[in-house]
Amino acid sequence: VPKPVAANDDVLEQFADTIGREHIITDASDMAPFLVEWRDRYQGAARAILKPGSTEEVAALLRTAHKHRTPIVPQGGNTGLVGGQIAFDGNEDFVLSLSRLNTIREVDPQGNTITAEAGVILQRIQDAAAEAGRFFPLSLGSEGSCQVGGNLASNAGGTAVLAYGSARDLALGLEVVTAKGQIWDGLRKLKKDNTGYDLKNLFIGSEGTLGVITAAVLKLFPAPRAKATALVGIESPEAALILFNQALEAAGPQLTAFEFLPRIGLDFVLTHVAGTRDPFADPHPWYVLMELTSGIEDTLENVMESILSGAFETGRIGDATIARSEAEAQSLWRIRLLLSEVQKHEGGSIKHDVSVPVAAMPAFLRAVTAEVERRLPKARVVPFGHLGDGNVHFNVSQPVGAPKEDFLDRWEEVNALVHGIVTEFGGSVSAEHGIGVMKRELMGEIKSDVELELMRSVKRALDPRGILNPGKVLPG
Amino acid sequence: VPKPVAANDDVLEQFADTIGREHIITDASDMAPFLVEWRDRYQGAARAILKPGSTEEVAALLRTAHKHRTPIVPQGGNTGLVGGQIAFDGNEDFVLSLSRLNTIREVDPQGNTITAEAGVILQRIQDAAAEAGRFFPLSLGSEGSCQVGGNLASNAGGTAVLAYGSARDLALGLEVVTAKGQIWDGLRKLKKDNTGYDLKNLFIGSEGTLGVITAAVLKLFPAPRAKATALVGIESPEAALILFNQALEAAGPQLTAFEFLPRIGLDFVLTHVAGTRDPFADPHPWYVLMELTSGIEDTLENVMESILSGAFETGRIGDATIARSEAEAQSLWRIRLLLSEVQKHEGGSIKHDVSVPVAAMPAFLRAVTAEVERRLPKARVVPFGHLGDGNVHFNVSQPVGAPKEDFLDRWEEVNALVHGIVTEFGGSVSAEHGIGVMKRELMGEIKSDVELELMRSVKRALDPRGILNPGKVLPG
Repeated sequence: VPKPVAANDDVLEQFADTIGREHIITDASDMAPFLVEWRDRYQGAARAILKPGSTEEVAALLRTAHKHRTPIVPQGGNTGLVGGQIAFDGNEDFVLSLSRLNTIREVDPQGNTITAEAGVILQRIQDAAAEAGRFFPLSLGSEGSCQVGGNLASNAGGTAVLAYGSARDLALGLEVVTAKGQIWDGLRKLKKDNTGYDLKNLFIGSEGTLGVITAAVLKLFPAPRAKATALVGIESPEAALILFNQALEAAGPQLTAFEFLPRIGLDFVLTHVAGTRDPFADPHPWYVLMELTSGIEDTLENVMESILSGAFETGRIGDATIARSEAEAQSLWRIRLLLSEVQKHEGGSIKHDVSVPVAAMPAFLRAVTAEVERRLPKARVVPFGHLGDGNVHFNVSQPVGAPKEDFLDRWEEVNALVHGIVTEFGGSVSAEHGIGVMKRELMGEIKSDVELELMRSVKRALDPRGILNPGKVLPG
Repeated sequence: VPKPVAANDDVLEQFADTIGREHIITDASDMAPFLVEWRDRYQGAARAILKPGSTEEVAALLRTAHKHRTPIVPQGGNTGLVGGQIAFDGNEDFVLSLSRLNTIREVDPQGNTITAEAGVILQRIQDAAAEAGRFFPLSLGSEGSCQVGGNLASNAGGTAVLAYGSARDLALGLEVVTAKGQIWDGLRKLKKDNTGYDLKNLFIGSEGTLGVITAAVLKLFPAPRAKATALVGIESPEAALILFNQALEAAGPQLTAFEFLPRIGLDFVLTHVAGTRDPFADPHPWYVLMELTSGIEDTLENVMESILSGAFETGRIGDATIARSEAEAQSLWRIRLLLSEVQKHEGGSIKHDVSVPVAAMPAFLRAVTAEVERRLPKARVVPFGHLGDGNVHFNVSQPVGAPKEDFLDRWEEVNALVHGIVTEFGGSVSAEHGIGVMKRELMGEIKSDVELELMRSVKRALDPRGILNPGKVLPG
């Protein structure tokens, strides 16, 4: 229901009284950076950008918004991949930027915690941990600009999930402003606390639709002191899965990466990136990048060699190379990390961020590859990613020489096909990026009515007037 | 509001139609085992005990209960420590026993999961994991009779939390019957799934007040193949905390136990248990029991020796012994594990299950010990437990020779004193046992109005008629 302009102006006045006119952006060009989605998938619009400077100011803004039923779109570093941070209604929506809540309130190396406000850039947290001789494992491509509040609101994944978990697993406590503008101080540093409902995990991953995270107590870890990195040539995803379980048995939580890619992925890298070379004399159908990490110096080479020699003896792996220096380790990692980028040199690529149960990955890959190749002859399937997490970036490159736009026009069709098979395998259509606006309508297809009703009940309970990030997460 | 007996009988008839008269217990002596709390702290009462045989039957029962606003008290193995599983109203309450949902639906060693119904005894899950060459780490004193549904409903802790987390951390997916009698199939095996609100963690730890957990997908781990166990004599909790951080840096997640006890605890064991002996020539004020675990054979002794020699050199520990055999390891563990039991030979003991931030443990112990000794001269403070989790069993033994009852009469007073200091240190008054009925009124003291309001909103949203485990968790 549209509201009269007068009421809207009145709200803006009240917001200005709360945080100061100088912290409200209404000029179109100044608003632009907060409204443009970084991959140009969405063009946002908003009445204004609100930049409160404290948790109390966030609370006061939300009390006003709640009173006037004003839609509020919380935003961190604006690096989200599903449009969850984008406002769309230029007449109604206000973007609530957390950028000015950027204080690291405490680093506690003895207790292995860091307490940071929502607007702190992820890299600053990593750096502050390192300065204290500790390690904060959350690591993402956007870590130079994403904010930890957004990481928590979207339960970000990244490259350290196998051993350390997602953002959810790294948070001990939260401070949240509710939809009604109350401050919940849940900034606990406790490893064990069984006193009532798990509000913390309810707010984490709710993408700003249940409350506004304003600060968090995060876990720190001992800084790793030793590392062993190996690249393995291997026959099949089945063999890779067996190797994964062997590595997990031998190394347990010291197994910090188990990534995989197909030969075509390595070919893309070798073709498009100068200075790269095939680590092996012969080609292999698949490659596994495996990393062990430890707090002391001298034990990992033995473990890695024991894992690999066991796999050699049973004929499960074709070839393997262990990095003998940090430089060698980096050149092995480079192959994996360049993969996201090199695909663009091969034309259009239709992408999926999906997960299946770890043990189902080989069968899933066989089924989905067969179906995509049947539907799109000559398209090139490039599945790669975090085998140990059951998370694959199932990307499909266009046929060589075909028109890029024709291929990309089939994005929705291929998505539907892939997501259908993911669902058959008990998987997730959003392993780490969230729902936002991009996958919102998918929720109606993948979730049961019971689950949607439970989620809607929770939404109504915590945000009865529906002012927090409307139109996100739950289908219309 | 009491309901007429006729309506009540009518409900019973409908329950009988659903699950069969033979699965409803109404005879007083047959009901007794479901109503008696095992430590005799509570005497329950109920209209009947309902023993459904399937998730569908649980759902049908709850649809009837919802319709008639009939109170339902879910119960697993009846081993809870806070009365959460006890029904109290003999005219109104029905106990919903999950015991007949006792099927292990699947063991998946490749995917490292086990799917079990709520009524499966914890030990059966441990055994099934071991048979498949895997390890299920949840381990409690009551594991021979507690049920996994209750473990999840209460987010049980136990002896493996340091490395593996609580019950919450071990669940990948849940099947839950809602208060309205709908079945939520959330039995996912996914390590990564960012599709909407975290319902799983909302139900876990809610002590049967938000829904009835009927099955779960649980994580399995590689079976440990090597272990190193050491007992350390140490000057103070401060020194123990430094040792803990050094051990964590060196061993990371291979550090699977870091328990502590005071000299008086060792004295209790040496006095009351035949065949025990002091592991060291000289007494030490405190002792730390430290355990490392690994998936391969030959690396742990080095790590343990490196941790201990580093601590010796800096003078931080007084003495240490590394177990050279499994028998030696067990005799060291025995000292720690006997501690709960031997206290009873020293008369009355007032107990607390509390946690504080790990780094605050030394200061907390100093503060709370001083205050208890001031208030109760000659009482003997025996704090022991999971230092690595920040979880201490802060128990107070009566003065030697004083009347036991006089001492135990001060239970509430001492609880209030200890919980007050716990709260000052940002701690939890229930680290692992939950709230139930025992600590329900404490919730009003330790939680902010905002937090209680959030919890009450969630309760109203998911159980609008308040039929699930009424009178538990949330204060009246």
